[in-house]
Amino acid sequence: MFECIPNISEGRDASTIDAVAGAIRGTAGVQLLNIHSDPDHNRSVFTYISDDADAILEATLRLFEVAVARIDLRIHHGAHPRVGAVDVVPFVPLEHTTMDECVALATRAGRAIAERFGIPIYLYEHAATAEHRRELPAIRSGGFEQFGQKIRDERWQPDFGPASVHESAGVSVVGARVPLIAFNMQLGTDRMEVAQACARAVRGISGGLKYVRALPIALASRGLVQVSMNLLDFRRTPIQRAFAVVREEAERHGVLSARLDINQL
Amino acid sequence: MFECIPNISEGRDASTIDAVAGAIRGTAGVQLLNIHSDPDHNRSVFTYISDDADAILEATLRLFEVAVARIDLRIHHGAHPRVGAVDVVPFVPLEHTTMDECVALATRAGRAIAERFGIPIYLYEHAATAEHRRELPAIRSGGFEQFGQKIRDERWQPDFGPASVHESAGVSVVGARVPLIAFNMQLGTDRMEVAQACARAVRGISGGLKYVRALPIALASRGLVQVSMNLLDFRRTPIQRAFAVVREEAERHGVLSARLDINQL
Repeated sequence: MFECIPNISEGRDASTIDAVAGAIRGTAGVQLLNIHSDPDHNRSVFTYISDDADAILEATLRLFEVAVARIDLRIHHGAHPRVGAVDVVPFVPLEHTTMDECVALATRAGRAIAERFGIPIYLYEHAATAEHRRELPAIRSGGFEQFGQKIRDERWQPDFGPASVHESAGVSVVGARVPLIAFNMQLGTDRMEVAQACARAVRGISGGLKYVRALPIALASRGLVQVSMNLLDFRRTPIQRAFAVVREEAERHGVLSARLDINQL
Repeated sequence: MFECIPNISEGRDASTIDAVAGAIRGTAGVQLLNIHSDPDHNRSVFTYISDDADAILEATLRLFEVAVARIDLRIHHGAHPRVGAVDVVPFVPLEHTTMDECVALATRAGRAIAERFGIPIYLYEHAATAEHRRELPAIRSGGFEQFGQKIRDERWQPDFGPASVHESAGVSVVGARVPLIAFNMQLGTDRMEVAQACARAVRGISGGLKYVRALPIALASRGLVQVSMNLLDFRRTPIQRAFAVVREEAERHGVLSARLDINQL
């Protein structure tokens, strides 16, 4: 059993979200299990599964076909960092499927996407081809707007596809990874410096919890800031521990209310 | 392959959400795919799958064990209607699994939950035992607070368990259904009458789109109202059509912004 959880750069236009959902549902042997859209992030996450690698690859190509035709990053604005119309495409092994099988599938998918759509592809996590581009934040740093520069760097040649950014669809990051929890906390303030302090407090790389990644994000339509987190190993770092660290830091800044918003394993 | 998507009446306390997630994850043969929590609804939705009916039943019993120990409806407040600590437990057939197999599983689960926890169980949708209690809104009407009266009515005897409401855990609704999309729209106003008008406009029962159920909900922490919808047949009524009807009605009331929030198939 394979799970695929692509994130596309559209969280506001119902007709595009619907068209992508239809493309996935229309693929025989694939089950669409979840859609999550966030209008402030301007981003949607689709979750689908199949026990057939060919079928889940086909659904993913159909998703690209719709998303690339409808999303133009040159006019896309959202609070979440992104480099592609289809930003990131993780494959996750479920049940008896192995990580090696997922790596093989992600590699096949990356090659097929590059060939069919002319989009530069970066393989990440377990599928990565170099250590410096294993982690998503490293690949995504600079965003779509600066990728034209970044792609000229020898260290940032794509794994597949042209060495130039697709005009409207950018680049895509495709890979294989373990399940993770995407976990957001809204803070009862609009002060970005509080979200930044909380993100620093909780994330492993700056001294916080080892298996946590965190980004501060402004939610303009809600007049709030958010700490957007990934829990990379929810057995070792449970939700409540990350929650407690963020809440403690928020309280230190005089922010008392924190709202929980958990999504997408 | 079976999918189970229980909704529990806790969307704020990270330690309870985490404990429930741990109980599901700790069950061999079951994959937890998604958690969605909403603090205003004060409700969380867990999505897990298994190809083993015994395993998914075991995970569901473990979920009840944690939720019943930690959630007390007498002190629970939330914007979403509910009758139980574990409010509703739908089983959905995926891949080659049939609806009949799901009905059998839901019936087994209902009996086991009633026996182990002493909670009255109502079977719904494809598992329902009478036409007047096929649909969730009919079973849930009145909520936990009025269920002590309702359960004395002959037409509302539970399918399993005692004919009296569990003191802290209420009653639970267990059944088998097709996949659906839970789809919420936030309106740029705090006027409940606008949400009520939009819900009336879009839902099938009051003259709107046939496969849409809709509820107006106040989101206190966001200072907004919401139309919370279920799309019962997303092939015949796509997201964008429901979105357009709600937006049109909201605009008629002078409310221009509508935010999309799609979750949980």
